[in-house]
Amino acid sequence: MPGGHATRAGRLRVVPLVTLSTDIGWEYAAQMKAVLARGLPFGHIVDLSHEIRPHAVREAAFLLRHMAADYPAGTIHVAIVDPGVGGSRAPVALECRNGSFLVGPDNGVLWPLARTLGFVRAVRLRREQVGVTGPLSPTFQGRDLFAPAAVALANGRPLSSLGPAQEPSRVELPRPRRTPRAMIGELVHIDRFGNLITNLPAAWDPPGRSPAELVLSRRAPRRLARARSYSDLEVGELGLLVSSFGLLEVAQREGSAAERLGAETGERVELRPAASPARA
Amino acid sequence: MPGGHATRAGRLRVVPLVTLSTDIGWEYAAQMKAVLARGLPFGHIVDLSHEIRPHAVREAAFLLRHMAADYPAGTIHVAIVDPGVGGSRAPVALECRNGSFLVGPDNGVLWPLARTLGFVRAVRLRREQVGVTGPLSPTFQGRDLFAPAAVALANGRPLSSLGPAQEPSRVELPRPRRTPRAMIGELVHIDRFGNLITNLPAAWDPPGRSPAELVLSRRAPRRLARARSYSDLEVGELGLLVSSFGLLEVAQREGSAAERLGAETGERVELRPAASPARA
Amino acid sequence: MPGGHATRAGRLRVVPLVTLSTDIGWEYAAQMKAVLARGLPFGHIVDLSHEIRPHAVREAAFLLRHMAADYPAGTIHVAIVDPGVGGSRAPVALECRNGSFLVGPDNGVLWPLARTLGFVRAVRLRREQVGVTGPLSPTFQGRDLFAPAAVALANGRPLSSLGPAQEPSRVELPRPRRTPRAMIGELVHIDRFGNLITNLPAAWDPPGRSPAELVLSRRAPRRLARARSYSDLEVGELGLLVSSFGLLEVAQREGSAAERLGAETGERVELRPAASPARA
Repeated sequence: MPGGHATRAGRLRVVPLVTLSTDIGWEYAAQMKAVLARGLPFGHIVDLSHEIRPHAVREAAFLLRHMAADYPAGTIHVAIVDPGVGGSRAPVALECRNGSFLVGPDNGVLWPLARTLGFVRAVRLRREQVGVTGPLSPTFQGRDLFAPAAVALANGRPLSSLGPAQEPSRVELPRPRRTPRAMIGELVHIDRFGNLITNLPAAWDPPGRSPAELVLSRRAPRRLARARSYSDLEVGELGLLVSSFGLLEVAQREGSAAERLGAETGERVELRPAASPARA
Repeated sequence: MPGGHATRAGRLRVVPLVTLSTDIGWEYAAQMKAVLARGLPFGHIVDLSHEIRPHAVREAAFLLRHMAADYPAGTIHVAIVDPGVGGSRAPVALECRNGSFLVGPDNGVLWPLARTLGFVRAVRLRREQVGVTGPLSPTFQGRDLFAPAAVALANGRPLSSLGPAQEPSRVELPRPRRTPRAMIGELVHIDRFGNLITNLPAAWDPPGRSPAELVLSRRAPRRLARARSYSDLEVGELGLLVSSFGLLEVAQREGSAAERLGAETGERVELRPAASPARA
Repeated sequence: MPGGHATRAGRLRVVPLVTLSTDIGWEYAAQMKAVLARGLPFGHIVDLSHEIRPHAVREAAFLLRHMAADYPAGTIHVAIVDPGVGGSRAPVALECRNGSFLVGPDNGVLWPLARTLGFVRAVRLRREQVGVTGPLSPTFQGRDLFAPAAVALANGRPLSSLGPAQEPSRVELPRPRRTPRAMIGELVHIDRFGNLITNLPAAWDPPGRSPAELVLSRRAPRRLARARSYSDLEVGELGLLVSSFGLLEVAQREGSAAERLGAETGERVELRPAASPARA
């Protein structure tokens, strides 16, 4: 997918992919893509998502890390989930070990992906150094600063030419913990099906068929069947399985666990062995 | 749109298009596109939809057949609407007469498109034969098996190299029927406007201006004006017309017929000549 | 992003970008993209939005002008927000000064963009001249007429070959006005965050920190803090700032002003200096 094109000398020049992950919706993203289309006549843009939950920086950081980590080396990932746009958080670009670049606000949204890809260095984007001459909207740096920075990087400009070195904010995803009786973590994402993605690693969960008990925030405990895939559950049954993120997931077969349980992203999640086989 | 690129020998190699039709949402689809981007550096991906109604296999089969049928010969269509993922349904790839391939679960979602394009043969995908070496998530074969299979096919590997021959499930779309007094079918899709798409063929409906009567499941009959296009109706009026699918459609001008009638996909639809001109 | 490909003669032929802006949803748009993919094997399609508010021609005209204006010269923009499809409004294609073309219904959706890009001439699309031989659905000209017209233009056919000259409807966006005490305009768009985009030009608003008062239709006045960016506001506070459209915007920090105020697109907006510092 990186657009390749024959140069005059007959050599193939490969323009890296640019991916977009935002909470801004398609209409604003269209304006970012205009900037990319002008600057990268032979480039390819991949819309990862423009429908991340608005202002949900932590959830976006989690999603970006999983959505973007497996794109080819050299890909440029632009992420715009930026409630602090125009404020004091720095606009940054990060370089990773595989030659990929991450562009966006320094509010933590980029860090988990940078750590996964191997963080090398970062700069604070300076508009004059990026080459932005027009006005800079204080509410849409995605279009006016981040997209031009992605163009510059895709065209081969070195990271250091875009601004001074900057130590990025190393905002880690929430860490789960274990006690002898329970695993305690957080609901980090609810997917389109209403499945609840926790931050509890699959490896913590002993394999087997014994049911588990879920306590979501202060709600009453709910019994969960163990399953390898959704099809192991009865239609409508709640179960616990390993999500495709490699994390424990609470799901209802062919239904929305989130709706059934009234769950919201960010809630506290506790999982423990089910006490008695009675409750359903 | 198939990415063409000059090879070293100076010849143009055309990489076929890969289309994606899913109910999984943009965030999971982004992970499938990463696999495609790695495997097809000069390929093009077309997002058909990632917002098909969750788990709605029959509706997805209907939509896929209409969304995908007119893509160029040789296109690879990946469809993921797969409530039984990880269960007993087989992962398959189908070859069609025009050189197109269909990749997805063998739950019926692929069959109407395969029949339209001319079914030739199918295989059950075997991960070792596809060349998948990493772990295979039991909940996301779209990323871990179907996307790699699409890459293999786009790179020219023959279908037979991906697994043993398999007879696909020939799940047909629901068939309507006619009595002397009425046409009886099913509401197969509700579009973004709230228009009700039935499976009643346009050819069954005698041309003319006489009003029709709609009975949706067990609801009271509703009178429908006849229209050629939405603009033949008054604003707010319910009408019967030929949809762009070539099927009879119930629509409300500049409003949602689905909301007005409380209609849901899968409901029984009966259409008959209106008895009296009185009811509205 | 325009797909370039080496021709047999070794020259690079550039196929212009085609953008799509619609209210029809992804499933119908997929059918338009099939027509483009067949006709433009080396072209690139950019999905601007398929989720414009249904039937909202004025809002679509506003959005299209802002989404599409900065795409490269020569881009072909197809816009389908067309409640009158199949009725008397003409199907048209417009040529602009920078070599871009706009294709869609002559209902006003294209005009603000044409004016911005510099309108040159227009034709009424005639199906035989466009080269459409199959049936033409009266409900989906996007697929059956506009997409083929975009293919013809992208392949270099002159505008005049697609139909007779036509004077397009010059439907302007609503114009705001000013009195000595107030600015009166319209809410032209609500974005994904619930921010209210007015048609009041940023230049009208005197810079400074004095609070403003908003009257939305006949609702009670609301006090708005002045802000340069969202981060100048307290979380939950309502404020007035300059949107990235260059127009005055009412926003709530990390919340939806539209939900808070019950606002809808098209409402009358009045802004005036706040009378007293008391009200919140």
